[in-house]
Amino acid sequence: VTSIEPEQNAAEPEEPSREEVQDAWPALSIDERMDAFRLLPRDEAEELFFSLSARDQLALVQAFPTAERRSWVRLLPPDDAADLVQSAREEDRPALMSLLDDRTKKDVAALLAYREDEAGGLMSPRYARVRPDMTADEALTYLRQQVRSHAQLETLNYSYVLDADRKLVGTVSIRELFSAAGDQPVRLIMHTDLVTVPEDLDQEQLGRIFKQQDLVAVPVVDAEGRMKGIVTIDDIVDVVEEEATEDIQKMGGTEALDAPYLSIGLWSMVKKRGVWLLVLFVGEMLTATAMAAFEHDIARAVVLALFVPLIISSGGNSGSQASTLVIRAMAIGEVRLRDWYRVCRRELASGLALGTMLGSLGFVRIAAWGAISDVYGPHYVLIAATVFVSLIGVVLLGTLAGSMLPFLLRTMRLDPASASAPFVATLVDVTGLLIYFAVASAILSGTLL
Amino acid sequence: VTSIEPEQNAAEPEEPSREEVQDAWPALSIDERMDAFRLLPRDEAEELFFSLSARDQLALVQAFPTAERRSWVRLLPPDDAADLVQSAREEDRPALMSLLDDRTKKDVAALLAYREDEAGGLMSPRYARVRPDMTADEALTYLRQQVRSHAQLETLNYSYVLDADRKLVGTVSIRELFSAAGDQPVRLIMHTDLVTVPEDLDQEQLGRIFKQQDLVAVPVVDAEGRMKGIVTIDDIVDVVEEEATEDIQKMGGTEALDAPYLSIGLWSMVKKRGVWLLVLFVGEMLTATAMAAFEHDIARAVVLALFVPLIISSGGNSGSQASTLVIRAMAIGEVRLRDWYRVCRRELASGLALGTMLGSLGFVRIAAWGAISDVYGPHYVLIAATVFVSLIGVVLLGTLAGSMLPFLLRTMRLDPASASAPFVATLVDVTGLLIYFAVASAILSGTLL
Repeated sequence: VTSIEPEQNAAEPEEPSREEVQDAWPALSIDERMDAFRLLPRDEAEELFFSLSARDQLALVQAFPTAERRSWVRLLPPDDAADLVQSAREEDRPALMSLLDDRTKKDVAALLAYREDEAGGLMSPRYARVRPDMTADEALTYLRQQVRSHAQLETLNYSYVLDADRKLVGTVSIRELFSAAGDQPVRLIMHTDLVTVPEDLDQEQLGRIFKQQDLVAVPVVDAEGRMKGIVTIDDIVDVVEEEATEDIQKMGGTEALDAPYLSIGLWSMVKKRGVWLLVLFVGEMLTATAMAAFEHDIARAVVLALFVPLIISSGGNSGSQASTLVIRAMAIGEVRLRDWYRVCRRELASGLALGTMLGSLGFVRIAAWGAISDVYGPHYVLIAATVFVSLIGVVLLGTLAGSMLPFLLRTMRLDPASASAPFVATLVDVTGLLIYFAVASAILSGTLL
Repeated sequence: VTSIEPEQNAAEPEEPSREEVQDAWPALSIDERMDAFRLLPRDEAEELFFSLSARDQLALVQAFPTAERRSWVRLLPPDDAADLVQSAREEDRPALMSLLDDRTKKDVAALLAYREDEAGGLMSPRYARVRPDMTADEALTYLRQQVRSHAQLETLNYSYVLDADRKLVGTVSIRELFSAAGDQPVRLIMHTDLVTVPEDLDQEQLGRIFKQQDLVAVPVVDAEGRMKGIVTIDDIVDVVEEEATEDIQKMGGTEALDAPYLSIGLWSMVKKRGVWLLVLFVGEMLTATAMAAFEHDIARAVVLALFVPLIISSGGNSGSQASTLVIRAMAIGEVRLRDWYRVCRRELASGLALGTMLGSLGFVRIAAWGAISDVYGPHYVLIAATVFVSLIGVVLLGTLAGSMLPFLLRTMRLDPASASAPFVATLVDVTGLLIYFAVASAILSGTLL
C-alpha cells in the first residue's frame, strides 16, 4: 500500500484560482476571460470550460487561435457540442462542425435537426444499453466494455434494454444488476412500465414530467418506439431555471431577454422593454380619455381627483398579486385550465375580503382627516363612503381580472405569463376610473355633484 | 431463452389509471384520493405514493387506518421519511417515528436536527462508500454488497472514498472503476479535487453550486471533513423550482404562500396578501396628500388631472420591468452586489431612451388631439410639453428606483425579491406626482397656473 501523495490530500480548498475565475466570470470581458483561462492549469481550465454555458463556450472557442480550437471543442459530449454549434451564427456553423471527430459530427448533425427547446434537442445519444437475453453478469461485462470504448456515456444509473430492432423494451439499473443472481436474464430483472417521451416534446412539459415522476433520466423514442437518446436531470435543472426566468420576465411586463442581463446589448434590451411599455402606454391613454369624460365632475369637486391615484393603484396591486399567484400555479401544474371556476370563487372571496379591508382603512383615514381639518370640505363623510365603495369594487375587479386573464390567455393558446402585473394594472386602471366616477355620481349627486 | 411474458410487453401505455389519478390529483379531496389509491394495484399505488410531495404523503398516511400506515411509511428512504415527519404537527411526530424500523429511525432523527432548507436537511445518509486501499475489483464487489444489504442507496454514479476516520478523501465513479485495471488501488483512480458543502449551507446557495459546477451529487461534510451524507440533483430540481416560486410570489407583491395555491386556506391567503396590500395602501395614501398639496393648481387647470393616471402608471410600469429584471438576474447569479454601478449606468441609459419614446408618443397624442378639438384648451402645446418632460423624468425615476432598490435591500440583508412590482410602483407614484406638478408649474406658470 503506497502512502497518499501530496496532491491527493483532498477535502480542503486546493485551487482557489478556478473558483475565483468562476466567481468573477459574469463580470469579465472576453479578453479578461481568455487571460484567466490561460493562467489556469489545463485540467482546471477544462473543468471551467465544462461549467460554462454554450454561449460562453462559443465566445471562448471563437476567441482562441484556430490551432487551439479543435482540442476544446472535442472535449464536449455530443449534446453539449450541439448546443455550442446551435449558439453560433448560421455562417459559422460549418467551421465548428469541421472541428469535431466523425462520430461526434454524425451525432451532432442528428441533434441539430431538433429544436433547442424540445426533448430531441436536449437528449444525448450516448446511453448505456443491454439486450434482454443477456444474463446479469453478461450485462455488467457489456456495460464495462461500453464504458471503456467511449467514456462519455451520459449516465450509468440506468441501462436501456433494446431488442433487435432498437426498440426499447425495458430499463434496468446497475443496482438491480448488482443485486440479481449473476445468471438471471435481464428480461426477468428489467422494468417494463416505462415513462418515455416523444422527440418533439416541449421542454417545459418535459420538466413537469421529470418532477411529477421523480425521474433522473428519461428515454426519448420515435413514433415506432425506437430509442433515440436520453434526457438527464442535470439538463432539466437548467430548463426549470430558464423557464422560470422567462416567466418572471414576462410577468414583469417585458419580453423574455433570452440572454444574461449584463451581456445583452443595450439596444436589444430597450427594444424588448419598449415594445411592452408602448403597448401599455397606449392602453393607459384610455385613462386620459376616461378622465376627460368626467372633467366636469372633477371641476365641480376637485377633491375627487385627490383619490384617483390611490384607487387605481389599489386595483393594480391586488390584480398583480392575483395574476402572479395564478400564473405561477399554472406554470408548476398546481392549477389547470379546468380549475378556473374554483380559482374564480376563491378570488371572489379574497377580493371581497381584501377590498373591504382597504376600503375600511380608506374610510377611516378620510373621515378622521375630514373631521379634524376642512381639507375635504363639509361632505367628507360622503367622500369617505365613495372611496370605501370604490375600493371594494376596484380590488374585486383587480383580483378577478388578474386571476381570470391567465386562463383566458391559455384558452387562446397564448402564454399565461403575458398577463403581467403591468398589463393587469393598466386594464384595471381604466375600468377602475369608471367604477370610481360611477360610485361618486351615485353617492355625491345632489351634494357635491 | 424464455419468451417475453405478457406483462413485460412494454413501451406502450399500459396503466392509464395511475396516470389519470396523478393527473387529477391536485383537484381531489382527501376521500377521493384514498378511494383512488385503493383502486390501484399495489405496485402502481406505491409508485404514485413516491411521486407525491411530503405534505400529500402525510395526509394520506394519516387518513389510512393505523394497521396500514406502517407499510407505507417504511417504503420511504430516510431523507423522504424525514420530510414526511417534518410536515407533521409537532404532536403527531412521535407516532410517525414509531412506525419506522430502528435503522431508519436513527437516520431520520439525525436528519430532523437540520433545518428543512439547508444542506443537512436535504441530504441522504445512504451513499455508496469505498476505502482508498481497495482495488477496483474489490471496490466493485464491495459496492455490490452494499446494494444487496440495503437497496436504498441514493445513487451509484459516485462512490465516496472514506479513510479510517470517516473523512472524505476522494470520489470515484462506477464508470472509472469499470474502466480501470481490476488490480489498481482506488487511491490512484479517485478524484481528490472535491466540491463539498457544509451541513448548514442554505438551499438557494446549494442550488447555485449545483448549477455552476454541473454536479449530479454533492457530499456534505462536517467541520472536521467527516462525511455526513449526499445531496442529489433530483432534490435540487425541487429546490430551484421552490425558490423561483417564492421569488415570483414576492415579486408579485405578496408573501410567499409556502403551499400550493389551491390547498392553502382562504384565510391564510388573504392574510399573506392583505399584509402587503395594506402596507402599499398606506404608502399610496401619500398620493392623496401630494395631490392635496396641488389641489389649487388642479382647481385652476383641471386638465392637469386628466394625465395623472397616465404619468404615474408609466413610472410604475417601467419600474416594475427594471426591478423584475434585476431581481431575477441577482437570484440566478448573473448580477452581484458589486455590479450595482454597471446596472445603474445601463438603467440610466435605458430609462432615458424609454422615457423619450413614451414622452414623444404622449406629446404627439396630446398635441394632435388638442389641435383638432378644444378638449385641452388653447394651451395644449404647453400641456403636451409638460407631459413630455414629466414622462422622461418619471420613467427615468422608475427604472432607477426599480433597479437600485434590489441592491439596497440586499445590502441591508433583506430579500431583493421584496422590491416587488407593486412596491416600486407605489414608490414611483408618489414621487412621480411631485415631478409632474413641479414640471407643470415650471412650464405652465403665467399661462394656465
